[in-house]
Amino acid sequence: MTVGEGAAGKGGALVVVGSVAIDTIETQGGRATEVLGGAATYFAVAASFFGPVKIVGVVGDDFPKAELAWFEKRGIDLSGLEVRPGRTMRWTGRYHEDMNVRDTLSFEANVFDGYMPTLPAAYCDAPFVFLGNIAPALQGHVLDQVRSPRLIGADTMNFYIEGARADLETLLRRVPLLIINDEEARMLAGERNMIRAARKILDLGPTSLMIKRGEYGVLFFSGDSVFSAPAYPLEEVFDPTGAGDTFAGGVMGYLAATGDTSPAGIRKAIVYGSVVASFTVEAFSLERLRTLTRDDIERRYRQFVSLTSFDVASV
Amino acid sequence: MTVGEGAAGKGGALVVVGSVAIDTIETQGGRATEVLGGAATYFAVAASFFGPVKIVGVVGDDFPKAELAWFEKRGIDLSGLEVRPGRTMRWTGRYHEDMNVRDTLSFEANVFDGYMPTLPAAYCDAPFVFLGNIAPALQGHVLDQVRSPRLIGADTMNFYIEGARADLETLLRRVPLLIINDEEARMLAGERNMIRAARKILDLGPTSLMIKRGEYGVLFFSGDSVFSAPAYPLEEVFDPTGAGDTFAGGVMGYLAATGDTSPAGIRKAIVYGSVVASFTVEAFSLERLRTLTRDDIERRYRQFVSLTSFDVASV
Repeated sequence: MTVGEGAAGKGGALVVVGSVAIDTIETQGGRATEVLGGAATYFAVAASFFGPVKIVGVVGDDFPKAELAWFEKRGIDLSGLEVRPGRTMRWTGRYHEDMNVRDTLSFEANVFDGYMPTLPAAYCDAPFVFLGNIAPALQGHVLDQVRSPRLIGADTMNFYIEGARADLETLLRRVPLLIINDEEARMLAGERNMIRAARKILDLGPTSLMIKRGEYGVLFFSGDSVFSAPAYPLEEVFDPTGAGDTFAGGVMGYLAATGDTSPAGIRKAIVYGSVVASFTVEAFSLERLRTLTRDDIERRYRQFVSLTSFDVASV
Repeated sequence: MTVGEGAAGKGGALVVVGSVAIDTIETQGGRATEVLGGAATYFAVAASFFGPVKIVGVVGDDFPKAELAWFEKRGIDLSGLEVRPGRTMRWTGRYHEDMNVRDTLSFEANVFDGYMPTLPAAYCDAPFVFLGNIAPALQGHVLDQVRSPRLIGADTMNFYIEGARADLETLLRRVPLLIINDEEARMLAGERNMIRAARKILDLGPTSLMIKRGEYGVLFFSGDSVFSAPAYPLEEVFDPTGAGDTFAGGVMGYLAATGDTSPAGIRKAIVYGSVVASFTVEAFSLERLRTLTRDDIERRYRQFVSLTSFDVASV
């Protein structure tokens, strides 16, 4: 089954594979040293607001025990998270005044170097799987282990679009839902116009495509249908790190929890993803998500309604 | 009365003041020589899909008679359009591959030079007035002639924001509805974040602000309320000239025709403005608007509904 087919069904387990890291982040507003980071981290915590999540990744033996305990408290299953001797992946980045621009000051793969994701047996029947932003060959290796997927989502990045194009094209033929940002979409399609770019990407395999546009929200393409969701209007974006990963986590978390992959369910999932992402950027790292409640999420969902609604009757 | 106050009332006459010009436009797709242009032209033709419009401006004696006849056929009152000996204003521009960027290759004010807009007596009681993008002092001079305005809208540009700041601030205290683009909003507010920029602009006088963001649609601010309308997803933007002016024309045209300046009426007007703008960019100059029908507009309005709608019930 792919996105948009069928009506609401039962939900099911959600697995995410990707990076769990320790970040150091500089913005115009300050600096956060050695804080929680990594795409799978943001994804899993976002998804955990809707239901349980299983994480597949690797950390070093320096990874804070308190954070692992927090993950478990949130319903994040860590049996697929290997702990290896050595240092956890580290990323240091600096945002410009224009927060759409950031420089990577340093990156250490550390224990992620040579990592080959292996799903615990109990994960292999998960119907909802998200392939975070790692090498397409590794994403394919994960897919090989999944026995009865109902919805596979994936992310990728400029590094793989340019450097592992053949692997990525092979993977995309197996991925019904691709979630990438606008620059990645333009690069993948070789096309500046976002609508034409989307059509070209859908020709590569995915039946559905979500394009994340930062402060401009999200465009969703599936067949001939297009959905446009705005970003929540924020007076202050404190730290954009992880916004896209929490968007994807909110989307997949909602879909896995409800099982509603109908067109209406997908749109609702996109709004929930946008809601969680809008909270993420209000503080450094995952700090805002530590205190966020499901009530906060519902309240902002209703604000999205008032942000976008207009009289559907023309004339 | 200002935007958002009161319920639907009766409509009323709409006056626009601004430039009527002859353009030469180069895009990657071609070149259009000596075609119809000017902000008031685009505005008036867009508004004329909803009801009659009165235009205040000046053209030279070289202005094509056939175009004047077309205006009149569309319900555009030309008694405020002076015809002076000399050449009509001319603009030549070239768009880059990234159509958000354009160079002005030449500009001649011609008969517009020294022009002082004078409203025919019959225009002075018009309840709906739009001050197109001309010098703030001239916009103020027009306002001085208006006796019973119900809704005044205005546009401005970087040239006046930088070069006639004091005049512009004086004007803004008299303008309830400002319609500008995102770059102009940032420049006027001295603020990169669009939400903070909007708050600062609302402090300058306008009670309502529409920010045009090209392919990213429109943000509308009024009091604590924010409305986000997407742009219609187009595979081909042929010529972006006049998109913003037709947006404003659609907005004001709908408001003047219906008299519905309630919050719901304004949102509907914004969608209609977005619809007309989306057609404008499909061909050079005003060519697409020559064959556009009200049915085409209603059909695309409904497409905006399907582009943006999602289940309003959370959970």
